[in-house]
Amino acid sequence: MVLQGPSIFSGNAHPDLASRICAYLEQPLGHAEVFSFSNENIFVQLGDNVRERDVFVVQPAARPVNNNFMELLIMLDAVRRASAGRVTAVVPYYPYGRSDKKDQPRVPITARLVANLIETAGADRVLTVDLHAGQIQGFFNVPTDELTALKLLATHFRTQGFDGVVVAPDLGSAKRARNLAHLLESPLALSEKRRQANDDSAEMLHLIGEVDGRDALIIDDEIDTAGTLAGVAVLLKENGARDVYAAATHGVLSEPALTRINEAPIKQVIITDTLPAPPPTASGKITVCSVAPLLGEAIRRIHTGQSVGELFK
Amino acid sequence: MVLQGPSIFSGNAHPDLASRICAYLEQPLGHAEVFSFSNENIFVQLGDNVRERDVFVVQPAARPVNNNFMELLIMLDAVRRASAGRVTAVVPYYPYGRSDKKDQPRVPITARLVANLIETAGADRVLTVDLHAGQIQGFFNVPTDELTALKLLATHFRTQGFDGVVVAPDLGSAKRARNLAHLLESPLALSEKRRQANDDSAEMLHLIGEVDGRDALIIDDEIDTAGTLAGVAVLLKENGARDVYAAATHGVLSEPALTRINEAPIKQVIITDTLPAPPPTASGKITVCSVAPLLGEAIRRIHTGQSVGELFK
Amino acid sequence: MVLQGPSIFSGNAHPDLASRICAYLEQPLGHAEVFSFSNENIFVQLGDNVRERDVFVVQPAARPVNNNFMELLIMLDAVRRASAGRVTAVVPYYPYGRSDKKDQPRVPITARLVANLIETAGADRVLTVDLHAGQIQGFFNVPTDELTALKLLATHFRTQGFDGVVVAPDLGSAKRARNLAHLLESPLALSEKRRQANDDSAEMLHLIGEVDGRDALIIDDEIDTAGTLAGVAVLLKENGARDVYAAATHGVLSEPALTRINEAPIKQVIITDTLPAPPPTASGKITVCSVAPLLGEAIRRIHTGQSVGELFK
Amino acid sequence: MVLQGPSIFSGNAHPDLASRICAYLEQPLGHAEVFSFSNENIFVQLGDNVRERDVFVVQPAARPVNNNFMELLIMLDAVRRASAGRVTAVVPYYPYGRSDKKDQPRVPITARLVANLIETAGADRVLTVDLHAGQIQGFFNVPTDELTALKLLATHFRTQGFDGVVVAPDLGSAKRARNLAHLLESPLALSEKRRQANDDSAEMLHLIGEVDGRDALIIDDEIDTAGTLAGVAVLLKENGARDVYAAATHGVLSEPALTRINEAPIKQVIITDTLPAPPPTASGKITVCSVAPLLGEAIRRIHTGQSVGELFK
Amino acid sequence: MVLQGPSIFSGNAHPDLASRICAYLEQPLGHAEVFSFSNENIFVQLGDNVRERDVFVVQPAARPVNNNFMELLIMLDAVRRASAGRVTAVVPYYPYGRSDKKDQPRVPITARLVANLIETAGADRVLTVDLHAGQIQGFFNVPTDELTALKLLATHFRTQGFDGVVVAPDLGSAKRARNLAHLLESPLALSEKRRQANDDSAEMLHLIGEVDGRDALIIDDEIDTAGTLAGVAVLLKENGARDVYAAATHGVLSEPALTRINEAPIKQVIITDTLPAPPPTASGKITVCSVAPLLGEAIRRIHTGQSVGELFK
Amino acid sequence: MVLQGPSIFSGNAHPDLASRICAYLEQPLGHAEVFSFSNENIFVQLGDNVRERDVFVVQPAARPVNNNFMELLIMLDAVRRASAGRVTAVVPYYPYGRSDKKDQPRVPITARLVANLIETAGADRVLTVDLHAGQIQGFFNVPTDELTALKLLATHFRTQGFDGVVVAPDLGSAKRARNLAHLLESPLALSEKRRQANDDSAEMLHLIGEVDGRDALIIDDEIDTAGTLAGVAVLLKENGARDVYAAATHGVLSEPALTRINEAPIKQVIITDTLPAPPPTASGKITVCSVAPLLGEAIRRIHTGQSVGELFK
Repeated sequence: MVLQGPSIFSGNAHPDLASRICAYLEQPLGHAEVFSFSNENIFVQLGDNVRERDVFVVQPAARPVNNNFMELLIMLDAVRRASAGRVTAVVPYYPYGRSDKKDQPRVPITARLVANLIETAGADRVLTVDLHAGQIQGFFNVPTDELTALKLLATHFRTQGFDGVVVAPDLGSAKRARNLAHLLESPLALSEKRRQANDDSAEMLHLIGEVDGRDALIIDDEIDTAGTLAGVAVLLKENGARDVYAAATHGVLSEPALTRINEAPIKQVIITDTLPAPPPTASGKITVCSVAPLLGEAIRRIHTGQSVGELFK
Repeated sequence: MVLQGPSIFSGNAHPDLASRICAYLEQPLGHAEVFSFSNENIFVQLGDNVRERDVFVVQPAARPVNNNFMELLIMLDAVRRASAGRVTAVVPYYPYGRSDKKDQPRVPITARLVANLIETAGADRVLTVDLHAGQIQGFFNVPTDELTALKLLATHFRTQGFDGVVVAPDLGSAKRARNLAHLLESPLALSEKRRQANDDSAEMLHLIGEVDGRDALIIDDEIDTAGTLAGVAVLLKENGARDVYAAATHGVLSEPALTRINEAPIKQVIITDTLPAPPPTASGKITVCSVAPLLGEAIRRIHTGQSVGELFK
Repeated sequence: MVLQGPSIFSGNAHPDLASRICAYLEQPLGHAEVFSFSNENIFVQLGDNVRERDVFVVQPAARPVNNNFMELLIMLDAVRRASAGRVTAVVPYYPYGRSDKKDQPRVPITARLVANLIETAGADRVLTVDLHAGQIQGFFNVPTDELTALKLLATHFRTQGFDGVVVAPDLGSAKRARNLAHLLESPLALSEKRRQANDDSAEMLHLIGEVDGRDALIIDDEIDTAGTLAGVAVLLKENGARDVYAAATHGVLSEPALTRINEAPIKQVIITDTLPAPPPTASGKITVCSVAPLLGEAIRRIHTGQSVGELFK
Repeated sequence: MVLQGPSIFSGNAHPDLASRICAYLEQPLGHAEVFSFSNENIFVQLGDNVRERDVFVVQPAARPVNNNFMELLIMLDAVRRASAGRVTAVVPYYPYGRSDKKDQPRVPITARLVANLIETAGADRVLTVDLHAGQIQGFFNVPTDELTALKLLATHFRTQGFDGVVVAPDLGSAKRARNLAHLLESPLALSEKRRQANDDSAEMLHLIGEVDGRDALIIDDEIDTAGTLAGVAVLLKENGARDVYAAATHGVLSEPALTRINEAPIKQVIITDTLPAPPPTASGKITVCSVAPLLGEAIRRIHTGQSVGELFK
Repeated sequence: MVLQGPSIFSGNAHPDLASRICAYLEQPLGHAEVFSFSNENIFVQLGDNVRERDVFVVQPAARPVNNNFMELLIMLDAVRRASAGRVTAVVPYYPYGRSDKKDQPRVPITARLVANLIETAGADRVLTVDLHAGQIQGFFNVPTDELTALKLLATHFRTQGFDGVVVAPDLGSAKRARNLAHLLESPLALSEKRRQANDDSAEMLHLIGEVDGRDALIIDDEIDTAGTLAGVAVLLKENGARDVYAAATHGVLSEPALTRINEAPIKQVIITDTLPAPPPTASGKITVCSVAPLLGEAIRRIHTGQSVGELFK
Repeated sequence: MVLQGPSIFSGNAHPDLASRICAYLEQPLGHAEVFSFSNENIFVQLGDNVRERDVFVVQPAARPVNNNFMELLIMLDAVRRASAGRVTAVVPYYPYGRSDKKDQPRVPITARLVANLIETAGADRVLTVDLHAGQIQGFFNVPTDELTALKLLATHFRTQGFDGVVVAPDLGSAKRARNLAHLLESPLALSEKRRQANDDSAEMLHLIGEVDGRDALIIDDEIDTAGTLAGVAVLLKENGARDVYAAATHGVLSEPALTRINEAPIKQVIITDTLPAPPPTASGKITVCSVAPLLGEAIRRIHTGQSVGELFK
């Protein structure tokens, strides 16, 4: 029973990322037919034998989110039933990460459901990047490796000579911002969103901390509609900040994110390619760093039984 | 611990059907917010207390198929975590029913995966109508009630005085056609699709049995793109059939089904409302029978512990 | 951790088949004591160390069916607890395959139960031949390889120069018959069994399709009591067929199958050795092809991680 | 959701016992068709609606043992899929109880396998009588009630005025014998079977303790072939015992038990009806006590939520 | 099958709290023997029949933590095997809540392990108070109700006329502090702990936000050794705060918490009785509010199928 | 994927034993931080990479029992999440072994619960020594190897020239005593503990068998408080025994075991190091044999796929 190198397959969520990972690993992407019939049913057939192989299925929760997630589950089932030796779900952007607790009555915990579904479909392990909350690792019973793009983002700004204040756009991002501030040896400020006492539907942003006369870097795990981001940028400017930058691992960029970014007093936005990036023409402000080498190296280490933790020393 | 009547909720797949079921049961539909954010993440919140209740979530695999299926799973998770006493997934049209075995190397068995996902999400039991193959019942460990619309369809044609031949459009439908033929006391014919010996890509239809000078009724579990249906209708005409009718439980009607039906030598198509019907203007040939009373009565019997089997005596 | 070749064990169901498989693989059969005490309790002890080995337990559902099935489960438990690296249940004839759905109220789905029991007892994978319905693959969560003897049977008849009509003895066999017809480039006919409208207990056979003046080959997955087979043979003769042949993968041959075969207007019956064959003296009409090379090659490929699907190209 | 009284079904293992239990409970036995086809496949269909009912399936491991055990599993599957509210497997004589540990290399632990199979088939709880080892309770994850017939047997001998020594026929029965001795306020003796130092195949019986001039009562959980029992009876006589009696909960009585009992210096053997008793003509020495009232009362208490433990105070 | 009121049992972790809950519910505490033998093995025996009852086992992770947690698991096993109808683990202070993610290589996620162990031992549902992270709810597959004592604490300070700044002692408490600030209509400040750039072992506290001339209220989920709490109190004083108060749901109070509290510039500390409180003589600064009415009301609602969410409207 | 030798880790239960095992295997012990915080929460971090390694965690149930057992579970979780290839829990003394059945109403079966917890935490297999009852093997679904120290103990006494009677201190030890008697070619006697008929609280010891004028060797699986042991020693003396010896695999030695041993008419007590031994000064009568070579050899064989059963031939 000889195991060759890892077998890497991609669905339709982000084939470019899978190709970049394969380029890093200097091996071809596995052959797989993955498409939808006119009744919207997804069809999967692997073109390569995977018996006893160490298989990685690369599929972030890109748009269309639920379709791509079903593709992932169906690919996992196909790989498992094709007698793979081990199956790793590589989900660089984890779906439904913000639905991670019951903060209202009678809501689901969809992030846990997603974990159960991935395990049920046949994943023996999971590889992901910058979860919305680290606790989501614990939603899995199977071993889970969470990588972080924070060092990548820090390096970008350090190289640029950034010397300002790191800003958490809301209190849930406080720890992530502190970690980036530590890497950049910068002070920290936070924005707090609070409902008005006399009008429950209106929310006001307050700044806690000092930014006057300094550059500011807003850091979050993801940029979705960029509503909060744009609001915080204005707030920072009102509080005397010089240039405002933003960084996030996941560029979700739901409508009207691009418009808001283009119109907001933000100089530059750095994201990674855990999700397909918008076309360069969509916004001149967006720069994309690739996590492909990070994912590729992690896959190499998982496959050869080397420490993944060492990647982050 | 007092249990009131059944609690019935609907996602966005087919609220009309859920309303018709509630009308049969003379009770209101449960309140639930089910919508997608701009990042395509589905949000669910139940508006009614369901602790210890007997909950039914009505959600067939209507378009968009994968979205509606994820809605079902997320609703099941919400109901389960809200401490329902029992949860039944009511899936009148079962998704991925045709992907029920590995008939090629390295394909999934998606119909089994779907069953595992529904169980994982929290369903204690399942209620469905006319599965593509009866064996899909066995994909579930939880009790599953499969209803059939075949008597409903038979009644329609018996009332119309149908006195022709029942035709299976392919060999997989042979048993279903025989059952309808038995109900209508009609003879049976079959269409066989076979690849050409000298050209593997071309398929030819053959008729086995006699239809000359008689009306013909093509029966299938579902009408998807109507390609086979239209082809068989032509074949029947070529073999001397008088009027050609078609019947199916599930009107999937993927593009270009309506065009094909309108153009084919078919007089009338009978389907049910397990899926939302096309607008009446789309095709004058289509008639819809409702399975709501059937589903409503089954829910009533499940809830009160009466035999569902008796429904079919 | 060095893995040697596969370890193959047999219970008492069909040791000859296990020996033929080992002959194909050019290796000895594993040592195991498997017998029943006077209280009918089955005792199992493996004579060979199986730690970390790739173990295959060969045990079709031969008579006595329930005893042999319990032997299989108990052997799987012994192998698992003896720390085998991987355990494959090789079940060339699958028990209770015809009990694959609830077609009446309050019946079991025994074929699914059987799958659950095999998984519970410790099988990591399953290898079988020509299931009654392909969907039974989906009753398993563990990877399942279903081989088919259809090409073997087709080769036999092609070699004999068969040039007639392939006949499905009932509608459930329609697809299997079509597949054989395709391999033999023959036309297809079907027999339909139907209860009489005025007498529910009587069933009548009808022929759909043409056989007049041609040889006919009845194909089924198994021959049990041969009641339908004998009836269809007579029907074919009445419809003008020349010589009538029969073929099936599994020769169950329950009483009074041999008498019926001997008395029916059937020239030859081809079965395989998935089950122990009757003694040659029992019927001069029966010929047995061996599936041992097919099973042996599949085991070799499973063990070495080669494609099993390629076996069928 | 109204729950009526318990629904009690029987397979073919011991319908008389099931009838006696129903007589105690003053209710009819449930209707169920349970038989084998000529291919030895077991068919089960429940004749009564069991939705939401509290179902008890009575099936000890009587001969044919493996057939009856498969009947039990298949009935459990049918009951579960028929949507019973709760299912209790009533197994008065538990199969494979003596295979309860790995005392040799590469043997199964069949008693644990049996527990897993019963749970897999759908039992929510188990009711049994005098397990070979009490630890078998712990082989189940579901709640298990083990009743004992020891008081019943003690009462029989106390009524008869027994005033002798209680004898454990081997060391594994020592505790059971002590418990009976305590109930009868009798002294205890033990027989020890030991392989000869110079001849590993021969075993010798030794008596530990005093029986000279007193009646002796050999107690065991079951009498299988009665080989040990007859040997101990001779040993007791050689050591001066007056009359020798024997008692056991389960009369397995495998060949040649009856001959041995008839020929041994034993005056009387008391067993219960956890298994079908031999015909009275088979041996004049055997007396049968019924456990039906015990089982009936336990079922009544389980059904109504009363303490079963109180039965044994 | 009649279900009476809830059955409430307590281990040795915090019998006073269980008694207070029973007092709220106006019912006696269930009888149970729970003690350790001299070999430290925990013995449990329930004194009341619990068949079909709705059982609640009250056991927070009080000292000795691991003993009390094992008591909880063993009690759950006893209750389950005694055939309870439903079992709720009431764990007002959840053990190992801070070990909720892998933030270093090769560490466990003990909070998830704890959830798995509670489910394995037999809990059908869980009731807890103020988890360290809300995501721990998602570590359970069974329904989990998390209550919060935040309103209780807010009421205490509102009644006292508190009119200062709410302070998060670290960034992980930011959201909790914001929620309390919203209830008290107060501004928010945060303390940030950061390792020194030139000395990785030293940590410095910084204050973000304004407290000069105002009272300050430090809020956390638990007070363990009070090291951070005391440090933040000093920091607040250095930044000009008037009186400093502290509040937390769980008073873990590990050594040397009481000394630190007594010595720190803190005026008052409010905790609840999710854990046994220190004796009043230990510190004159500590005030304890009881969560017993909150837990009692939640149990009442769970038992009767009423909404628990409404408790928090 | 290359697997090196086994990786062996120890918690705080018995690091000396782990070191002795590593000495036998001529390899270093794995690095792991395992300690408790002041809030009694156990922290675990593995210092060595274990990806794809064959990991053994050595942790008997030494005092403090429940703490050490939690350490075991938490270490298993850490090893599993660190992506070990296989995890074996090495539990030389199994906790709660005497709680192996429900012999009273409403008690747990803690030995089964312990097995479930070990499997839940992530053990793929278990290695243990002399279980209280062999059936506990069957409490595990994962493969379990039970070693015995009986030959070690027999060798000790054979070397010493022991020529007396082997004595079972209670009826539950009868089989173990018989096995030792067989190894030493000695006769057997038993002590029986029985409650008095007229006073249920008092228990009397009786001797069954002859010891007059001979040395006696009391054998048990464990010595806990030594109450029974001391009582039996006196009884043996009263019945004329010459020197009295005692042997047991597990020296639990709960208070006041050492006092009782020192005061009882026992010449020598032989135990093994499955648990940490008392200091030599505690009692001059106690001799400790090491099971480290036995465990080391078993680990070597498990790791290399060699038979462990052969160890006992």
